[in-house]
Amino acid sequence: MDIYQKSLELHKKLNGKISIKNKYNIKDMSDMTLVYTPGVAEACREIYKNPDEVYTLTAKRNTVAVISDGTAVLGLGNIGPLAAMPVMEGKCALFKRFADIDAIPIVLNTTDTDELVQTIYRLSPSFGGINLEDISAPRCFEVERRLKELCDIPVFHDDQHGTAIVVGAALINALKIVEKKLKEVKIVINGAGSAGIAITRFLIKLGAKHITVCDKQGILNKGDISLNDAQKEITKHTNKNNQQGLLKDALNNADVFIGVSAGNIVSKDMIASMSIDAIVFPLANPIPEITREIALEAGARIVGTGASNQPNQINNALVFPGIFKGALEARVKDITDDMKIAACKALARIIKKEDLTETYIIPNIFNKKVATYISKAVIKAAK
Amino acid sequence: MDIYQKSLELHKKLNGKISIKNKYNIKDMSDMTLVYTPGVAEACREIYKNPDEVYTLTAKRNTVAVISDGTAVLGLGNIGPLAAMPVMEGKCALFKRFADIDAIPIVLNTTDTDELVQTIYRLSPSFGGINLEDISAPRCFEVERRLKELCDIPVFHDDQHGTAIVVGAALINALKIVEKKLKEVKIVINGAGSAGIAITRFLIKLGAKHITVCDKQGILNKGDISLNDAQKEITKHTNKNNQQGLLKDALNNADVFIGVSAGNIVSKDMIASMSIDAIVFPLANPIPEITREIALEAGARIVGTGASNQPNQINNALVFPGIFKGALEARVKDITDDMKIAACKALARIIKKEDLTETYIIPNIFNKKVATYISKAVIKAAK
Repeated sequence: MDIYQKSLELHKKLNGKISIKNKYNIKDMSDMTLVYTPGVAEACREIYKNPDEVYTLTAKRNTVAVISDGTAVLGLGNIGPLAAMPVMEGKCALFKRFADIDAIPIVLNTTDTDELVQTIYRLSPSFGGINLEDISAPRCFEVERRLKELCDIPVFHDDQHGTAIVVGAALINALKIVEKKLKEVKIVINGAGSAGIAITRFLIKLGAKHITVCDKQGILNKGDISLNDAQKEITKHTNKNNQQGLLKDALNNADVFIGVSAGNIVSKDMIASMSIDAIVFPLANPIPEITREIALEAGARIVGTGASNQPNQINNALVFPGIFKGALEARVKDITDDMKIAACKALARIIKKEDLTETYIIPNIFNKKVATYISKAVIKAAK
Repeated sequence: MDIYQKSLELHKKLNGKISIKNKYNIKDMSDMTLVYTPGVAEACREIYKNPDEVYTLTAKRNTVAVISDGTAVLGLGNIGPLAAMPVMEGKCALFKRFADIDAIPIVLNTTDTDELVQTIYRLSPSFGGINLEDISAPRCFEVERRLKELCDIPVFHDDQHGTAIVVGAALINALKIVEKKLKEVKIVINGAGSAGIAITRFLIKLGAKHITVCDKQGILNKGDISLNDAQKEITKHTNKNNQQGLLKDALNNADVFIGVSAGNIVSKDMIASMSIDAIVFPLANPIPEITREIALEAGARIVGTGASNQPNQINNALVFPGIFKGALEARVKDITDDMKIAACKALARIIKKEDLTETYIIPNIFNKKVATYISKAVIKAAK
């Protein structure tokens, strides 16, 4: 039985991967009057007097909504809200497992930007934070931007920032090994969707100076009228020579390749054309842009993929539990760039420089330091 | 320490009455690949092919959203979404305790009818059912009606129907004791909000023929232009002689009083003016329209209140867990009047006729038969 069949069987058996647990055992009528009416009225009155008390008297303080419209689910694309549910539930299970956060899956039956913003804003009082998930680009950028303005709780589109932060940490550590500097290396990012755009923006904030972004049509450049607003904006800060051409042209002499696109689209020759000590992160899932084996054969020195059965798994599950844990504990209203940068550096720092190797640039997700280091970094950055 | 302080302390200690529990223990990377990517993709594909599979492969089958806008919370009124959270969480805890249903509290920061309908409809794919809660009249009627039309999952405004069903069951049993017939008794309902309107409609469906409804201004009659649409509609089926006057006029010679209004507004004389073997349900909470003691002194034969420390507690927590349990198990798209009537009669039937007494007309909420009988009745009515 392959992993897909095995997973399906597990889903059939579980009928849902998460459930509700009462924190207080209601044994008799006296308990009823404390948990519910009439006693509960006092907690209501306290919050009415001082809204901040909602963080003491309810589960809001530790609850995150994982919200999707089902338009960009895994590599499956726009499969709709119902079919997106298993992913959202899975994400909630990871929130619980890695950060003890109570996360609730919510899928919406609209893909309209205005309606998404309105709906999510209106349900936001129920939660301590909002994790946007699998909303397709370019709508995801506007949805997140507007919600960040409207909501008084943190809103975080994990496909963008979770991915950007974990890629940033992996790159920081890989560069230590090859002894190159982030501000000097030539970075090629393939895939100008939510993850690619976010990685580009984030690496620039980390100090990268030479990034070229490619999408299906080739290198993103200032003359391309087919670009969406987010992509156009990116061309102002990348590809400074306004190079035109294809991914293979961009990769020539590049130091770093980051793929968030589709399987099997990078050839051995393309990797071979990169500079010495090339760092290659083909992150498309489940089939990477180029396999680890071929990339290494082509001369890459460090390879990281999304696969769990290979070294250097670059998985955003390393990031979102700790990010939200910190954001909820510090009760921040927004997860700022400073917090994201702090989280990224904290994640990289978990592996001491002397322990870094070509096959160990990023910690394992079951390493308990991961969520702890990241959450502490977020809390510190919040102060 | 009174019950309110005790409840507040419990809330402070718990920081939320419910939490998430993972149904599968994620021990290692292999588990990760089953619960989350890449394995989870197979469950997504199955649901995409056959949307009904969402009821097998996710928690939707057993999940209810408890949704409020915080406009009519307990006796506290319009206290807003945040202050309503303790009640919604409490309700979710009761769902778990009495029917093993996973309920999620959601409070919305809008009170606009259109926005409530849109928001709740858009998030409905995530859940197996929707329990509307503490939404003020008359908006609650339109919100529920429109959502029932839009959604393919059951939508149930508990303040209306839960209350109506439990009152109906208590009344059926009380009438057995006093040997009067529902179609013959004169019933006075005080309070023409969501509960009062719903009780009126429901008792008519059960067979009541002589109902008079009162509100603050007195008896609802066809000439009153101050009535809202729901109240106007009610006057077509109640108060057939179009009596005008006050509650005390209506109560003269009445067989049944049902109060869903405010504390201490019914006098001993008013109860004394009722017919012999009067049935009195002063349900205002926490202070009833008249105390049990005074009602009995005034000559009432059977008294039921909302108080947990008195006999005959008429509590809608007797109803909603079983109603939803049945609706979810039968996977109905709507909770119909037939199902509500079946639930009501099942609840009444739990006490055998020979066991009925003036102080035992309704079962205790901890009686395990309650949710079981009701859910089975709903399932049977669904067939």
